[in-house]
Amino acid sequence: MIVIGERINGMFKKVREAIQQKDAAFIQDLAMRQVKAGAGVLDINVGTASADPVTDMVWLVKTVRAVTNVTLSVDSARHDSLEAGLAAVTGSRMLNSTTGKTEDLDKLLPLAAKYDASIVALTIDEDGVPSTTDKRVEIAAKILAAAMDKGVAVDKLYIDPITLPVNCAQDQPLRVFGALDQFRMLSDPAPHMCIGLSNISQRLKEHQLLNRTFLIMCMAHGLDSAILDPLDEELMKAMITAEMLCNKFIYADSFLGSSRPTA
Amino acid sequence: MIVIGERINGMFKKVREAIQQKDAAFIQDLAMRQVKAGAGVLDINVGTASADPVTDMVWLVKTVRAVTNVTLSVDSARHDSLEAGLAAVTGSRMLNSTTGKTEDLDKLLPLAAKYDASIVALTIDEDGVPSTTDKRVEIAAKILAAAMDKGVAVDKLYIDPITLPVNCAQDQPLRVFGALDQFRMLSDPAPHMCIGLSNISQRLKEHQLLNRTFLIMCMAHGLDSAILDPLDEELMKAMITAEMLCNKFIYADSFLGSSRPTA
Repeated sequence: MIVIGERINGMFKKVREAIQQKDAAFIQDLAMRQVKAGAGVLDINVGTASADPVTDMVWLVKTVRAVTNVTLSVDSARHDSLEAGLAAVTGSRMLNSTTGKTEDLDKLLPLAAKYDASIVALTIDEDGVPSTTDKRVEIAAKILAAAMDKGVAVDKLYIDPITLPVNCAQDQPLRVFGALDQFRMLSDPAPHMCIGLSNISQRLKEHQLLNRTFLIMCMAHGLDSAILDPLDEELMKAMITAEMLCNKFIYADSFLGSSRPTA
Repeated sequence: MIVIGERINGMFKKVREAIQQKDAAFIQDLAMRQVKAGAGVLDINVGTASADPVTDMVWLVKTVRAVTNVTLSVDSARHDSLEAGLAAVTGSRMLNSTTGKTEDLDKLLPLAAKYDASIVALTIDEDGVPSTTDKRVEIAAKILAAAMDKGVAVDKLYIDPITLPVNCAQDQPLRVFGALDQFRMLSDPAPHMCIGLSNISQRLKEHQLLNRTFLIMCMAHGLDSAILDPLDEELMKAMITAEMLCNKFIYADSFLGSSRPTA
């Protein structure tokens, strides 16, 4: 599993304040704690409350890059913030994210190619968030074809089947498992498959239990990446155990302490 | 998920002593604690150290039946102990277990039919424990055909794909997931699918974490029954969460307290 640490995100109050006050020490500590906990990629998101998303993104990227060489995932809904962030990253980059809308693919895949960045691609298209397995697979196939066309290699592609909060769309987890089964067969090698884990449990009481249970179930269907909180210790233990059960590394009594892959 | 409580088993020292001393109160307390924790079936096994497996089985069955009406799973490797146990059960019964060996199927399916008992059937045949998905499916199909032939309805059949300890056979969990995917398609309605959960982690350090992770992964592939320890609270929480994520009952904030199915 490639763990994309989700914590550097302006939607969290303390991170938002640190961005406003340009508190580099706070951000760098949060970066290093995630890396030490097993993140192979760090997501960087200034949040929607940022008054200057371009400047804030560049500051965040440089601040984090000063303390770690892991891949940085530049995460924004704005094209200008994405491009500024990608340009500011030295070393390994990820773009988070494109949808399967033709307009987004036409803009963002060339951007990923230009910066040799990995890219997260959500199976959303002009019709919105799909409610079936088949529609997810159809959009994934569209994304994969577009990626090949625009010069993004399949091993740079992280397809996300989109999860909604389980209390809103309780029939969707089974559709996600089915989609993961089919994404794996779209190409050889298969694209990476990624989820934004916390979506499943947004604002729900048992969110940590829901997160780790859903993650493991997705891993049983081949999921190999997730945006999640690596500081959730029980989540990381469950994830590492599922990896071992999927024969990704050899069992030892100390398997929970095994080293983590990076992107 | 139909939970088959595993705790009344003479392989556990305290249970063995209670059987030897005919300590009904100890056994009945263990039975009721498992039922209250969510067991819909109680497994009854005198253990291999019993000097008189027939008498001990009958005593255990009657002792447990005096306090609960849940299905009792008569569990023995001995034909005489199985038959005596099944005859002693009033109400709902399960036979645990037959293999897919022709000799076992010819003996034990008619025994299940005679007592209108459910039956656990392990995908082991004359060649031993299978190492591939396909061989598990082949044996399951043999079991299913024999069950129809001997008058055991498909909804009475609990097919177990057999799990070995992960440190001995680390490639097997993925084979089990694949087998579960295919068992579901053997008939409509599908047979129940069951695992003896603790096999995966026998004598391993992180056995509870391994058990709950493996259980959830199997549930993501349609597993609907397991022999397990219902007194393991974290295990039960994980299991109920996975059921909810599989849309088996409707989400509520109090979903962990939902009532449990019986066999």
